[in-house]
Formats: sequence, structure tokens, C-alpha cells
Amino acid sequence: MRASPHVYLVGAGPGDPGLLTLRAAECLQAADVVLFDKLVNRRLLELAERAEQVCVEELPGPHAERQPHVNRRLVEAARAGKVVVRLKGGDPLIFGRGGEEAAALREAGIAYEIVPGVSAALAAGACAGIPLTHRGLASAVALVTGHECEKKPGGAATCATLDWAALARFPGTLVVYMGVARLRAIAETLVRHGKAADTPVAVVEWASLGRQRTVEGTLA
Amino acid sequence: MRASPHVYLVGAGPGDPGLLTLRAAECLQAADVVLFDKLVNRRLLELAERAEQVCVEELPGPHAERQPHVNRRLVEAARAGKVVVRLKGGDPLIFGRGGEEAAALREAGIAYEIVPGVSAALAAGACAGIPLTHRGLASAVALVTGHECEKKPGGAATCATLDWAALARFPGTLVVYMGVARLRAIAETLVRHGKAADTPVAVVEWASLGRQRTVEGTLA
Repeated sequence: MRASPHVYLVGAGPGDPGLLTLRAAECLQAADVVLFDKLVNRRLLELAERAEQVCVEELPGPHAERQPHVNRRLVEAARAGKVVVRLKGGDPLIFGRGGEEAAALREAGIAYEIVPGVSAALAAGACAGIPLTHRGLASAVALVTGHECEKKPGGAATCATLDWAALARFPGTLVVYMGVARLRAIAETLVRHGKAADTPVAVVEWASLGRQRTVEGTLA
Repeated sequence: MRASPHVYLVGAGPGDPGLLTLRAAECLQAADVVLFDKLVNRRLLELAERAEQVCVEELPGPHAERQPHVNRRLVEAARAGKVVVRLKGGDPLIFGRGGEEAAALREAGIAYEIVPGVSAALAAGACAGIPLTHRGLASAVALVTGHECEKKPGGAATCATLDWAALARFPGTLVVYMGVARLRAIAETLVRHGKAADTPVAVVEWASLGRQRTVEGTLA
């Protein structure tokens, strides 16, 4: 290892173990504790065979309220002198809540390193053969979450609803993460805000894995 | 190697050799010929020590007119039975012209695989400690090119100018690639189109490398 902070916030990439970075593999091999997301490919954990392996789903509380428990576990393990890897799908800072974990570590005075990873959009493009930017067609790409915001225990939404009118005017490719469940609503919203009905669309599921599926069509 | 198409369009990541993927390393090790971008970290080429290594800058013609030569070289090498790696900075399909190379290979009937890579935005976020999305602050991120479009030999621009008015309304983080040379113009354009003057800005240079620099401020 080139450095020795106690916590590594590591992007696992989209699923295919070959799309892990060399640095991420190195961190996993050095780990005493790995806290991993449920959707992370379990084959990656074979690199961390000597580590204690904890799926964050096993931590207390429902999904929406689990982040403080994850943060606390990271801090406690680091304070116990462990080399800790927080293994997250894709890239830690794109829809990964890595920023919140980094803030908690900073507040606790724990050194950390963020290891970027291949985010799902990049893998979907590569595996489905669809350039996210292309000369003369798209000079920009936007990554957007298809999830509605979760609610705080008190009931209030924790973030503003996305401005789909602005997204409909975005001058480039739109990539919606975790959008399958709301596919129809998203397509209708974009068309209502002026996006052309014949805009080409691809739906990619399980990008980079053997069970990957791609369905192509238009927005309406 | 898991498969044996003749050409691999490979993302080299942002520069730090540790941010290469395992699959990219595997491709480089198997290569007979590597065509690499000028800005790719030369240390990565050590993985392809038995390969013929060609910097695309050495191919004929000025930068803006070189793509057809790159495409032709890929096709010729593949037809000669070589395992060919086209090594590109970041991700091949984000401002990498990988889509054009894929199209040329498809047209020539050459099998290829696209290996995604850690795009510069992801590395800049991780290395500068700036989440590209963050709960309650940014539910989307847009990757945009700061380069004006190059001109065709005939003189006409090959792609439409970006719609900066739409970008100023983008509901999330904006990442401008290769934007340093046009920093002032881009900032002024965004403010003119209504982006708040106190929007926080970070300029990141050489993300992931030892010489990385980050300067933080506001848009105006």
C-alpha cells in the first residue's frame, strides 16, 4: 500500500470483477474489515478473504435510516486500528453517499482515501455499445437518479425533487440511474416538458454482467 | 483473456496507474500493438512491453484531421491478425471519440470490445474530495466539454455550440472537461444565463497524479 489512512471509500465498479481498479484490489487485499453494499458482486470479496466482511444490510434499521450506523461502524473500526474498506457499487461519489461518509470521517478526525470506480453509466455505454458523448450528436452527458428521494423519519423529503423541465432541455445524453421502476413516469415527464417523442432510448439492466439486458426504443 | 476480439478500445483512467482496471491491464499485457493517446500516462505502457507502441500523435496530419488515420490503423492491424489495444485517457465513450472508432471497426467487420475506464470527473471528485452528487445538494451531475468544436477541413464546425443557457439551469453539479483555457468565458457565460455568482467552483488539474492542483472559489 502506498499510504496508510485507516478508511478507504472504494468504488467497486459496475459488477464485472475485471472492472475493479488495481488500487481497489490492493485496498481489498489489505483490509481487516470490509463494509460492502448489498448489490456489490460477492466475487470481489474473495480478494479480502482474511477480512471481516459485513454487508451494510446487516446493520440496524431500515435502509433509509442506515447511513448513521454505517458511518459509526467505519469510525469505530478505524479507531480500533483496523484497515477499513467501504466497498460501494460504481463510484463512491456518484449516487453512492460517499460524501456523507467522508464528512463523518473528517469530523471524527479519521484519515481516509477515496478510490474512484467505473460508474454504472460508463459500463452501460461500453457494454451496450452506446457512446455517451459523440461528435456532432452529444457534447455532454448527464447522470441523474431515477429514485425519488427517501423520506426522513419525520416524514419530510430530504432533497428537492429534480427539475425535469431543465433535464428535458439538457443538451446531451441523459443517463438515469435506477430508473427501471419509474421508466414510464420518467419518459412521460420528459415528453411533457418538450423532449422529442422519437428520442432514442436504451434500457440497460445489470451492465457488465453475464445477465446484462439491453432494450432499445424511443421515448414515446 | 476471456474473449478474443481483435481490437480493444480501452479506457486508461485519469492517469494514476492504480486507477487502471484489471481488465485494461489484462488487455495491455495481451497486446501486439498499442495505439495510445499523447496524454496517457506512459507508465501504463510498461504493461505492454512486448507490444509495438504507437502514439497517435505520430500518425499523419494535424490533430483535428487524424481520426480517420487512427481508424485505418486499427483496422489494418486487426486484419493482420494482431491483438490491438487503443488506449485512451479516462473512459473511451466520454469525450474519447471511442464511438467513432467502434463505428469504423463495425463497418470493417472487425470484432471489438470496449473496456470502460474511470473518467476524469470521477477522479477529480475523489482526489479533490468533492462529491459529484450529494444528498440534498446535487441529485445529478453533468459532464460537459470545455473545448470549442474543432473545424472540418472545409471550415464548418462539426457540432453545434453547447446550449449554455440550458446548462446554467442544470439541476446538479456541472463538470467541465478541458475547461481551464476557457475558464473565464465559461464562468461569465453561466452567470449571464442566470447561474448564481456565488456558486462554488473548484478547478482541478492533473487529477489523480502527484502534480494535481485544486483551486477553489466561486463562479464570479
